[in-house]
Amino acid sequence: ERAGKPEAVFGEGKSLEELVKIIEAYVKEKGRVLVTRVKKEHLEELKKRFGNARINERARTVIVGDIPQPFAKVAVLSAGTSDIAVAEEACETLIFLGIEPLKFYDVGVAGIHRLLEPLKKCMEEGVVAIIVVAGMEGALPSVVAGLVDVPVIGVPTSIGYGTSLKGFTALFSMLSSCSSGLAVVNIDNGFGAAVFASLIARVAKRGESK
Amino acid sequence: ERAGKPEAVFGEGKSLEELVKIIEAYVKEKGRVLVTRVKKEHLEELKKRFGNARINERARTVIVGDIPQPFAKVAVLSAGTSDIAVAEEACETLIFLGIEPLKFYDVGVAGIHRLLEPLKKCMEEGVVAIIVVAGMEGALPSVVAGLVDVPVIGVPTSIGYGTSLKGFTALFSMLSSCSSGLAVVNIDNGFGAAVFASLIARVAKRGESK
Amino acid sequence: ERAGKPEAVFGEGKSLEELVKIIEAYVKEKGRVLVTRVKKEHLEELKKRFGNARINERARTVIVGDIPQPFAKVAVLSAGTSDIAVAEEACETLIFLGIEPLKFYDVGVAGIHRLLEPLKKCMEEGVVAIIVVAGMEGALPSVVAGLVDVPVIGVPTSIGYGTSLKGFTALFSMLSSCSSGLAVVNIDNGFGAAVFASLIARVAKRGESK
Amino acid sequence: ERAGKPEAVFGEGKSLEELVKIIEAYVKEKGRVLVTRVKKEHLEELKKRFGNARINERARTVIVGDIPQPFAKVAVLSAGTSDIAVAEEACETLIFLGIEPLKFYDVGVAGIHRLLEPLKKCMEEGVVAIIVVAGMEGALPSVVAGLVDVPVIGVPTSIGYGTSLKGFTALFSMLSSCSSGLAVVNIDNGFGAAVFASLIARVAKRGESK
Amino acid sequence: ERAGKPEAVFGEGKSLEELVKIIEAYVKEKGRVLVTRVKKEHLEELKKRFGNARINERARTVIVGDIPQPFAKVAVLSAGTSDIAVAEEACETLIFLGIEPLKFYDVGVAGIHRLLEPLKKCMEEGVVAIIVVAGMEGALPSVVAGLVDVPVIGVPTSIGYGTSLKGFTALFSMLSSCSSGLAVVNIDNGFGAAVFASLIARVAKRGESK
Amino acid sequence: ERAGKPEAVFGEGKSLEELVKIIEAYVKEKGRVLVTRVKKEHLEELKKRFGNARINERARTVIVGDIPQPFAKVAVLSAGTSDIAVAEEACETLIFLGIEPLKFYDVGVAGIHRLLEPLKKCMEEGVVAIIVVAGMEGALPSVVAGLVDVPVIGVPTSIGYGTSLKGFTALFSMLSSCSSGLAVVNIDNGFGAAVFASLIARVAKRGESK
Amino acid sequence: ERAGKPEAVFGEGKSLEELVKIIEAYVKEKGRVLVTRVKKEHLEELKKRFGNARINERARTVIVGDIPQPFAKVAVLSAGTSDIAVAEEACETLIFLGIEPLKFYDVGVAGIHRLLEPLKKCMEEGVVAIIVVAGMEGALPSVVAGLVDVPVIGVPTSIGYGTSLKGFTALFSMLSSCSSGLAVVNIDNGFGAAVFASLIARVAKRGESK
Amino acid sequence: ERAGKPEAVFGEGKSLEELVKIIEAYVKEKGRVLVTRVKKEHLEELKKRFGNARINERARTVIVGDIPQPFAKVAVLSAGTSDIAVAEEACETLIFLGIEPLKFYDVGVAGIHRLLEPLKKCMEEGVVAIIVVAGMEGALPSVVAGLVDVPVIGVPTSIGYGTSLKGFTALFSMLSSCSSGLAVVNIDNGFGAAVFASLIARVAKRGESK
Ligand SMILES: Nc1ncnc2c1ncn2[C@@H]1O[C@H](COP(=O)(O)O)[C@@H](O)[C@H]1O
Ligand SMILES: Nc1ncnc2c1ncn2[C@@H]1O[C@H](COP(=O)(O)O)[C@@H](O)[C@H]1O
Ligand SMILES: Nc1ncnc2c1ncn2[C@@H]1O[C@H](COP(=O)(O)O)[C@@H](O)[C@H]1O
Ligand SMILES: Nc1ncnc2c1ncn2[C@@H]1O[C@H](COP(=O)(O)O)[C@@H](O)[C@H]1O
Ligand SMILES: [Mg+2]
Ligand SMILES: [Mg+2]
Ligand SMILES: [Mg+2]
Ligand SMILES: [Mg+2]
Ligand SMILES: [Mg+2]
Ligand SMILES: [Mg+2]
Ligand SMILES: [Mg+2]
Ligand SMILES: [Mg+2]
Repeated sequence: ERAGKPEAVFGEGKSLEELVKIIEAYVKEKGRVLVTRVKKEHLEELKKRFGNARINERARTVIVGDIPQPFAKVAVLSAGTSDIAVAEEACETLIFLGIEPLKFYDVGVAGIHRLLEPLKKCMEEGVVAIIVVAGMEGALPSVVAGLVDVPVIGVPTSIGYGTSLKGFTALFSMLSSCSSGLAVVNIDNGFGAAVFASLIARVAKRGESK
Repeated sequence: ERAGKPEAVFGEGKSLEELVKIIEAYVKEKGRVLVTRVKKEHLEELKKRFGNARINERARTVIVGDIPQPFAKVAVLSAGTSDIAVAEEACETLIFLGIEPLKFYDVGVAGIHRLLEPLKKCMEEGVVAIIVVAGMEGALPSVVAGLVDVPVIGVPTSIGYGTSLKGFTALFSMLSSCSSGLAVVNIDNGFGAAVFASLIARVAKRGESK
Repeated sequence: ERAGKPEAVFGEGKSLEELVKIIEAYVKEKGRVLVTRVKKEHLEELKKRFGNARINERARTVIVGDIPQPFAKVAVLSAGTSDIAVAEEACETLIFLGIEPLKFYDVGVAGIHRLLEPLKKCMEEGVVAIIVVAGMEGALPSVVAGLVDVPVIGVPTSIGYGTSLKGFTALFSMLSSCSSGLAVVNIDNGFGAAVFASLIARVAKRGESK
Repeated sequence: ERAGKPEAVFGEGKSLEELVKIIEAYVKEKGRVLVTRVKKEHLEELKKRFGNARINERARTVIVGDIPQPFAKVAVLSAGTSDIAVAEEACETLIFLGIEPLKFYDVGVAGIHRLLEPLKKCMEEGVVAIIVVAGMEGALPSVVAGLVDVPVIGVPTSIGYGTSLKGFTALFSMLSSCSSGLAVVNIDNGFGAAVFASLIARVAKRGESK
Repeated sequence: ERAGKPEAVFGEGKSLEELVKIIEAYVKEKGRVLVTRVKKEHLEELKKRFGNARINERARTVIVGDIPQPFAKVAVLSAGTSDIAVAEEACETLIFLGIEPLKFYDVGVAGIHRLLEPLKKCMEEGVVAIIVVAGMEGALPSVVAGLVDVPVIGVPTSIGYGTSLKGFTALFSMLSSCSSGLAVVNIDNGFGAAVFASLIARVAKRGESK
Repeated sequence: ERAGKPEAVFGEGKSLEELVKIIEAYVKEKGRVLVTRVKKEHLEELKKRFGNARINERARTVIVGDIPQPFAKVAVLSAGTSDIAVAEEACETLIFLGIEPLKFYDVGVAGIHRLLEPLKKCMEEGVVAIIVVAGMEGALPSVVAGLVDVPVIGVPTSIGYGTSLKGFTALFSMLSSCSSGLAVVNIDNGFGAAVFASLIARVAKRGESK
Repeated sequence: ERAGKPEAVFGEGKSLEELVKIIEAYVKEKGRVLVTRVKKEHLEELKKRFGNARINERARTVIVGDIPQPFAKVAVLSAGTSDIAVAEEACETLIFLGIEPLKFYDVGVAGIHRLLEPLKKCMEEGVVAIIVVAGMEGALPSVVAGLVDVPVIGVPTSIGYGTSLKGFTALFSMLSSCSSGLAVVNIDNGFGAAVFASLIARVAKRGESK
Repeated sequence: ERAGKPEAVFGEGKSLEELVKIIEAYVKEKGRVLVTRVKKEHLEELKKRFGNARINERARTVIVGDIPQPFAKVAVLSAGTSDIAVAEEACETLIFLGIEPLKFYDVGVAGIHRLLEPLKKCMEEGVVAIIVVAGMEGALPSVVAGLVDVPVIGVPTSIGYGTSLKGFTALFSMLSSCSSGLAVVNIDNGFGAAVFASLIARVAKRGESK
C-alpha cells in the first residue's frame, strides 16, 4: 500500500459474497479496511459477519479493523439535511484515516447567520481543512471560502431536481466561485474529499514534526 | 400599446440607419422610446442626432423623450464589477418606466458582510422588489432571498469562464436555490427584470390607490 | 420564522417516521405546516395520524393547522391536463399563504381561443399575478404575457418526451420569450411560484394599507 | 439531376472565384442555378459578373437563369423582424422552384391577434403548406399548427441570446409541440423548408393532373 | 373538431379508468377515437371492454369506432427490427386517418441493397409521402431522401445505447442531412409523422378534386 | 522515436518563429518532420525558408525531409467538398508514413450510386483500411462499413451548421452505427486516422514478411 | 453473409421466445451464431435449450455452433474490475471470430507499474491489436497507445458516477488523447471493438498469405 | 484584506486606464498587487508605467510591489507545451504568495517515463502540494496522484479541439479519476490552484511553528 491512500473498497455493484471475500482479504493482508457505498440490505449482513465492524447507516460505510488515534482535525459542513449522507461518508473516511471530524450540518445559505458560529469554532479548534457538502445551487462553499483562510474542499451532491442537474449545477457553481481557496471533488464523493483532506493533514503534521 | 409594457427596441444587430428610423417612428407615434444593446459606436452618433437623448454608456441604452416622475422604488444589486453593465440596463429601464432604482454594486458573496447594510436600506426605503445581478457561481440572489421578504428577481450574467458556461451556471444556480421568493429572467436580461419589477410596482400602486 | 416565507417541508426522500416527527415539531412551534411532494402511500397514513389535515392527492400536499382568510387573488393556469399536479401544488401553497387561487386548467396553445375568457376573468377579479404552468414546448406563458399587464410567473413542467428534455425545453422557451413581463422558477416548482406570488401580494397589500 | 431537387449551391465558405466557376458550370449544364448563403461582399461582385442575376440581399441568395411560372402557393410567416433573412431564403428558393410565396412577417406570439388575418388569407389562397420561421422561444409554429389543417413546416432560427441556445430552444420547442401537423428542418434552414414544401406542391399537382 | 387533426388520446400516464372514461366520451361525441402509448396491461383490459376495438400490441394502440376507406397511400420504412414499434404506431394512425400504409421494415443502411426494391415499389404505388423510422445513427432517411422526390418524414427513435443519446443522435443526424426533401418530428413520434403525412394527403386530394 | 509514431508537430497556435525552430530541431535530429494545421500565412513563409519542403495548401501541412517509398495502400473517401481539407490532411500524413493514399472525394450519401465504383476499386487495389471523412449527418462511414470487410476509420468533420453541432452529430452517428467494422477518431483529426491506418499497414506488413 | 462480419444478434430487449427463434434460424442457415447482451435470467434458459452452447455469464453472451481454430492474437486490457463485463464481451466475440484473446485485467492508471509487464507480453506474442477497456476517466488507452506501436482500440465503459457521465468522459478522453495510434468504438461496445480487431487480423493474415 | 487571500486583480475585459487606476489604488493601500489575464498589448504599457513591475508574458501577469521570501515549495507540472501559459500563471501567483515553484513542463502521459524523475525530485524537495496542469484528455493528474502521497491539485486547460470540449473533458476526467488524493479548480484557473496550494502551505507552516 502506498502511504497516505486508504485501504478502501467501493461497494457499489458488488454482491454480498464479493464484499465478504474482499473484506477478508484486506483484513488478512493489511489488518483493516473501509468499505463505502454499501447497500442498506448488505449493511446488516456485514454487521453479523464481522462482529466488531463499525457500521454507519447514513454514510452506508463499514470499517473493519482498528481505528487510529486522531492526529488532526477537519471540519465537515453540510448545507441541507439531504446532504448529510455524503457528509457522513466523508466523516467515516476521516475517522478511518486518523482525523477527527468536526460536524456542522444544515448550515446552508438560506439562513446565512447560522454559519458564523461554526466557522469561529473551526478556527479555534485549528482545523487543517474544511469540507463543505452542498447540493442544489451549491452556494455554501463559496460563502465559506469567502470567510476563512484554510483550504476549503467542496463536495457537490446530487440532491435537488430540475436545474440542479443531479449535482452538476452545484459542481459548476463551486468551480466558478468568485471566492478563491476552494477546490472540488466529484459529485457525492465524500470519500475523495476526506482522502484529500487527510493528505493536507499529513503535510501539516510533517511540518509540525520538523 | 398595451399598458405596462415599454416602448422598447432591441438594438443588437440593427444598423445606425435602422435605429434612427425606428426611433423617429416611435417618437412620432408614442412620444418616447427606449433602445437597449446599442453598439458603442452607434451611441455617439445617436447622441448627435437626438440632442436631448439620455445615453448610458455602460448600459448601452438610449432614451429619447420624457422621463416620468418615479412612482415606486426598486433595488438593483450586483455581485461583481463586471456585472454592472447588466445592472445599469435594468436601472435605465426602471427609470424609463417611472421607477427609482436604488443601486448597490459589488456586494457579492466573497465578502458577505458588505451585503447587510444595503439590505437594511432597501427595507427602510420600502422597495417593491430587489433585482440581483450575478454571474460566475450566481450565489448572491440565493443569499439575498434568504434575508428579505420582498420578491427577488435574479438576473444571471454571462460573466466568467470555463464552468461558468456563459451564464448557465448562474442561471441554474438561481433556479435551484434553496431559498424561496426568487424568480429569474434570461441571461444578461436586465431589461426583462426591470419590466417585470415594474409590473409588481403597478400592482402595488393599484393596491395603494384602492 | 422570517415574515413571508412559509413553514414548509420538502417531503421527497423522507420516510413516514421522519415526516411525522417534522410535522409535529412544526405544529408545536409554529402551529401549522405545509408538506409538499409526499409519496402517495404516505398521504393516507398522514391523514390518519393528523385527523383534520388538509390533503390534496393530485398536488401530493399536506397542510396541518389553520388556513388563513385570503387577502389577495392569484390566477393559476395550466396548459395540459398532465400539468395539473404542479398547478395544484401551487394552489395549495397559495391557500396556505392566505391567497385565493383562481384556477383555469387545460387552456394550452393548441386551442388558443380557450384562453381569452379566463384572462378576461383574471383582470376582472384583480389578480396580483398569474402563474402559468406548462410542459412540452412551454409556449403558454409567452402567449399569456403578451396579453396581460400583471406579472406572469412561468412554471415549466417535466411533462413530455424526447426533445421536451424533462422540462428544459419549456424552461428555456419561457426564458427566451419574446414577450416581456415574465419570470420563471425551477421545473415542476409549483411551490416556489406560489411563494413568489405571495410576496407580490404582500407588497401589493402594503401599498393598499398605506 | 434528380426530379424535384433544386440545382443549388451552398455559398458559405466558398471564395468568389469558386462561386463564379460553379455558377458558370451549372448554367452551362442545366441553364440555371440558385446560390444560398452568399457573403454580402460577394453579392455585389456576382451582380456585376452575371448581369441579369436575381439578387436578394436580405436572403443572401443569387439566382442565375430563368424563373419558372408558379404552379402553386406556399405561405411564409416569420415571428420577428430578425427572422426575416431566413424567411427570405425560403421565399427565393420557392420562387426558384416555381412556387409563389405569400409573405406575412412579424406576426409572432407576443401579439397573437396579428396572426388571424394572415391565416384566413392563407386558406382563401389555397396554399399547399405554411412555412413558419421563428427564433427565441419558437412558439409561433405551434400556435399556427393549432389553427390550420395544411402541413406546417417549422424553421427555427438562431436569433436570440442566453437560453435561446442559438436556435436549439426554438427547434426543441417546435418538436415538442402539443399541436400536431408540424414537422421541422434544421436551424436557419429556409432553403430546406422550401424544398420540402415544393415536394408537397409537386405531389398536390400530381393529384390535380390525375 | 378541427378538420384534419385526429381524435387522439395520449395514453401514457393515464390509468385504466381514465382511459375508459375518455374513450367513452370520445365515442359518444365523435363516434371514434385513437389511443396511443397504451401500457401492455391496459391493452387486454381495453380489448375486453370495447369488444370490436382494433388493438395493435406492437404499436400499443387502440382504435374504437369505424375505420374509413383509404383515400391515399403513404410508405412506412423502418431501419431496424427494434424500430418497428414506432413504425407500427405511424401505420395505425394512418389507417385511422384513412390512409393505406405500405410497410417496408428492417431495410437499414448496413445493407443498402435491400432498400432499392421497396423504393421502386413506393414510386409505382404513387405514395404521397414516405415516413422513415430509424434509431441509432439515423442514416436511413438521408439515404432515402437522396433517392426519391416525394416528401420524406424522418422519425428518430430512442433505440440504441451510449452515443445514440436516446434518439438525439438520430434526430440531429436527420436534421443535418446533406439530402434535401426531408423534415422531421419528435423522437419516437410515429403518431405525429402520420398526422403530418395525412395533411399532405389531404392537400394532394384537394388538388385531385379540382 | 518510438517505432510507428510519426515525427509530427501540431502547428495550431504556434508562431512562425516557433515553427521554424521546431522544424529545424526535428530535421537536425531525425532528418524529417510533418507539420499540420499551419496557418495560411505561415505556409508561404515556410516554403521560402525550407526550399524543398512539400506544402499542401488545402491540407495546411508541411513536410520537410525525404518521403519514403510506399509499402501499402489506404483509401481516403470524403462525403462532401467541404470535407476535403481534412481528407487531404489524412493523405499527407499517409504519404509521410510511407502509405499510398487512394482518393475518392465527394461520394456522400445524397447520391449513393457514386459510391459503388470507388469501393470496387478499393478492393481491387488491396487497401488495408478505408478512411472515411464526413461531416453534417456523418452517414457515409456507416454505409461504407456495411459494404466492405476491411477496417473502416471514420473521421467526423466540423462542417455543417445548427444540429451538426460542430462535428458531434457526425461523431455520435458514426459511433452509434448499426454497421460493425467501424472505429473513429476525434473531429477533424485526419492526422490521427492516418497514423492509426499506418499501424494497421505495419501489422499487415509484419504478417507479409513472416 | 458478408465476409468478415459475424452472425451476431443483439439480445437486449428481445424476449426468450424471440431469442430462441432467431438462434434456431441462424444455426439452421449458417451453422452458428453469437448472441450478446442476454439478460441473466435468459442465460440459464438458453443453456438448457441449446445443450452445448458456450455461455459466458460475465459477458452475458451465448455462442451456439462451432468455435474456429484461432488464426491470430489480440490483447484485451481492462482498467478496473468493474470494466470486466465489457472486456469479456470483446473476448467472446474474438473467440467466435477465430482470434485468441490475451487477457490482462485491472491494470488501470492508478498503479501504472502494473501495466508494463502485460505490454511486454503483448509484443512477444505478436498481437495484431490491443483492445483497452476503461471507464471513469478513461486514461488507460492513452497511456497504452503512448507505449506500443500496434493499433489500440479504446472501449469506454459506462462505469463511474457524477462527472463520468455514463461513459462520455471516458469516450471524449480517449478521442482527445495526446497519444496517436488510438481509435474508439461506442460506450460499452466490446462487441464492436472485437469485430474491428478481427478485420485488422484478416488484413494481417491476407498479408501473411501473400 | 483577509489573511491568506492575495491582493489580486482579474485583468480580462478591463481597459488600460482601469488597470492603471486599480493598480495604483492597491499599491497605495496594500503596497503590492498581482494582476492576471492581462492582454499582450497592455503588458508593455504597464511595464512602462510601473518601472520595477515583474512582468511574465507567457503567464500574462503583472506583479507590482515586493516579492516575499519563499516559506514553502510547490511543484507545478504541465502535460503539454500548450499548457505552459496556465502553469506559468500558477507559478507567478505562488511567487507572489511567498512560495517557490518547482517547474516540470511537458511531462504528459504520451511518454510516461519522463514523469518519474520529476516526481522523485518533488519528494526530495519536500513540496507541500503538486499542481498538475493538463488539457486534452487530462490524464496526467490521475497518473501523478496514483504515484505520490501529497495533495495533487488538477488544473484542466482549454487546450485541444473537438471532443476536448474546451477543457470540460480534462475537467471531468480529473474529477472521475480512479486515483484518490486529487482535487480540481476551474478550467485554465492557474491562479486558483496556486492560492489553494498556498493555503495548504500556510496550514503546514502553522504546524511547523507549533
Ligand atoms: N465512495 C467512493 N467514491 C470514490 N472512490 C472510492 C469510494 N470508495 C472507494 N473508492 C476508491 O475505489 C478504490 C477501490 O475500488 P474497487 O477496487 O472497485 O473496490 C479504492 O482504492 C478507493 O480509491
Ligand atoms: N442554405 C442551404 N442550407 C442547406 N443546404 C443547402 C443550402 N443551399 C444549398 N444546399 C444544399 O447543398 C448542396 C450543395 O452543396 P455544395 O456542393 O457544398 O454547394 C445542394 O445540393 C443543396 O442540397
Ligand atoms: N403518440 C403520441 N405522440 C404525440 N402526441 C400524441 C400521441 N398520441 C396522441 N397525441 C396528442 O395528444 C393529444 C391528446 O393528449 P391528452 O389530452 O393528454 O390525451 C391529442 O390531441 C394528440 O394531438
Ligand atoms: N453487443 C453489441 N453491440 C453492438 N452491436 C451488436 C452487439 N451484438 C450484436 N450487434 C449487432 O447487431 C446486429 C443484430 O441486431 P439485431 O437484428 O437487433 O439482433 C448484428 O449484425 C451486429 O452487428
Ligand atoms: Mg446549497
Ligand atoms: Mg456571484
Ligand atoms: Mg405548453
Ligand atoms: Mg418566436
Ligand atoms: Mg438507422
Ligand atoms: Mg455526410
Ligand atoms: Mg480508467
Ligand atoms: Mg494531458
